[in-house]
Amino acid sequence: MFIKQNKFKKFLVVFLTGMIAQLALAMTVQAKDAYTIKNGELQRPTGYREWIYVGTPVTPNDMNNGKAAFPELHNVYIDPKSWAYWKNNGEFRDGTILIKELVSVGSKAAVSGQGYFMGEFVGLEATIKSKTLFPSEPGHWGYYSFSSKDHKTLSNAAKPFPTASCNGCHQVSAADDFVFTQYYPVLTAGKGTGKEASGGYLSDLKNHYVEPKGK
Amino acid sequence: MFIKQNKFKKFLVVFLTGMIAQLALAMTVQAKDAYTIKNGELQRPTGYREWIYVGTPVTPNDMNNGKAAFPELHNVYIDPKSWAYWKNNGEFRDGTILIKELVSVGSKAAVSGQGYFMGEFVGLEATIKSKTLFPSEPGHWGYYSFSSKDHKTLSNAAKPFPTASCNGCHQVSAADDFVFTQYYPVLTAGKGTGKEASGGYLSDLKNHYVEPKGK
Repeated sequence: MFIKQNKFKKFLVVFLTGMIAQLALAMTVQAKDAYTIKNGELQRPTGYREWIYVGTPVTPNDMNNGKAAFPELHNVYIDPKSWAYWKNNGEFRDGTILIKELVSVGSKAAVSGQGYFMGEFVGLEATIKSKTLFPSEPGHWGYYSFSSKDHKTLSNAAKPFPTASCNGCHQVSAADDFVFTQYYPVLTAGKGTGKEASGGYLSDLKNHYVEPKGK
Repeated sequence: MFIKQNKFKKFLVVFLTGMIAQLALAMTVQAKDAYTIKNGELQRPTGYREWIYVGTPVTPNDMNNGKAAFPELHNVYIDPKSWAYWKNNGEFRDGTILIKELVSVGSKAAVSGQGYFMGEFVGLEATIKSKTLFPSEPGHWGYYSFSSKDHKTLSNAAKPFPTASCNGCHQVSAADDFVFTQYYPVLTAGKGTGKEASGGYLSDLKNHYVEPKGK
C-alpha cells in the first residue's frame, strides 16, 4: 500500500511539474515579441506566412518606368499578438512587427481576366515599432530590408535604415501611425472592432464601391 | 495516512478526468472542418482573415473593359487545418475550404509608385473540397458566392453553383487539383515543404526574376 501511494505521489509530482513547466513556457512565448535583435541587427524573421495578412500594394515594373522601387506585389503581414492588440484597441502596440514579402508579377492574363498575377518571392522587408530600439525615430518605427539588390537572395540579418530614407514617405503619406493602413483593408476595417475584424460577421459591406454597368 | 492517500486519489481522478475531457474537446475541435453546411447551404464563413493567406490575383475593372468578372483584387485564404496538411503532404485534404475576399481598387498611385492599391471589401466567395458534399463534381470541389450583384452586401448563406459555371475554367486552367496555385506563391513555394512553408527559412529565393537595369 505504501508503495502504491508512493507511486501515486511520484506520478503526481512528475505530472504537475511537467504541466507547470509547459505553462511557464507558454507564458514566456506569449509575452515575447515576434522578432529577435542580435548585435543591433534584426534576425531574418520566420513563420510570418502564418501571421495575419493585411493587404497587398501592387507596383508592377511595367507601370513604373520599367523598375518599381519595390518589385512588384507586396504581401504585408502583422504578428498575431500585435494584430490582437490592433483589433481590440485600434493602435499599434510597442513591439509591433510588420512584414512586407515582395512577389514578382508572374502573369498579366488569366481565365479570370487581364491584370497582375503573382509569380515568385523576390524579397523581404520589415518594420518594427519599439521605444527601446528606436527612442528617437518618429513614432518609434524602424525599417529593415533583407533583399539583395538583384532580388535573388535574402540576408540572415539586417541593420535598420537611417530614419530619413524611409520615414520621409511614411511620415507624410501614411494614414495611421506611419503605416499605410489606407491600402490595408484588413487593418482599416478591423481597427478596434474586436472579433468582427477577423472577417465575415457583417452583411452590410459599408463600402463606397459602385459596380460598373454593362456587359 | 489512509485519508491522505484517498485525497491524492480523488484529486488525481478529478484532475485526470478534467485533462481527458479537455483533450477530447481539443480533438473534436481539431477534427471539425472550418465550415458549416445547413440545409445544403454553406453558412457565411467567419474568422478567415486569421487563416493562412495564399495570394491575391488582381483583375481591375479598368483592365477588363470596365467590368471585371471578379472585382477587383482577390485575397485568397486557406483554413489552418488544410494548410497544415498542404505544407506537410502537398495535397488538398478532403474538407479543405478556400476563401476569396474581393477588394476594390482604392487608388492607382501612392508614394511607392504607380499601380493598384486596395480600397474596400466588396465581396466574398468560397470553394470546398468534399467527397460527402460533392460526390460527382470534378475533384469534389464546389463553389459558392455570398456577394450581392451590386457588391454592397453579403448573404448569410449560399447554395453551391452548378458544376459547369465554375469548374469549366478551374478544370482546364488551374495548376493543381482545380486550384489556381500558379498564382498563389504561398501554396506553390510551400507545397510539401513542412515548416519552411511558413516563410523566411531560405536565403536563396530560387526565383527566375530578373531585376531590370537602369534608374
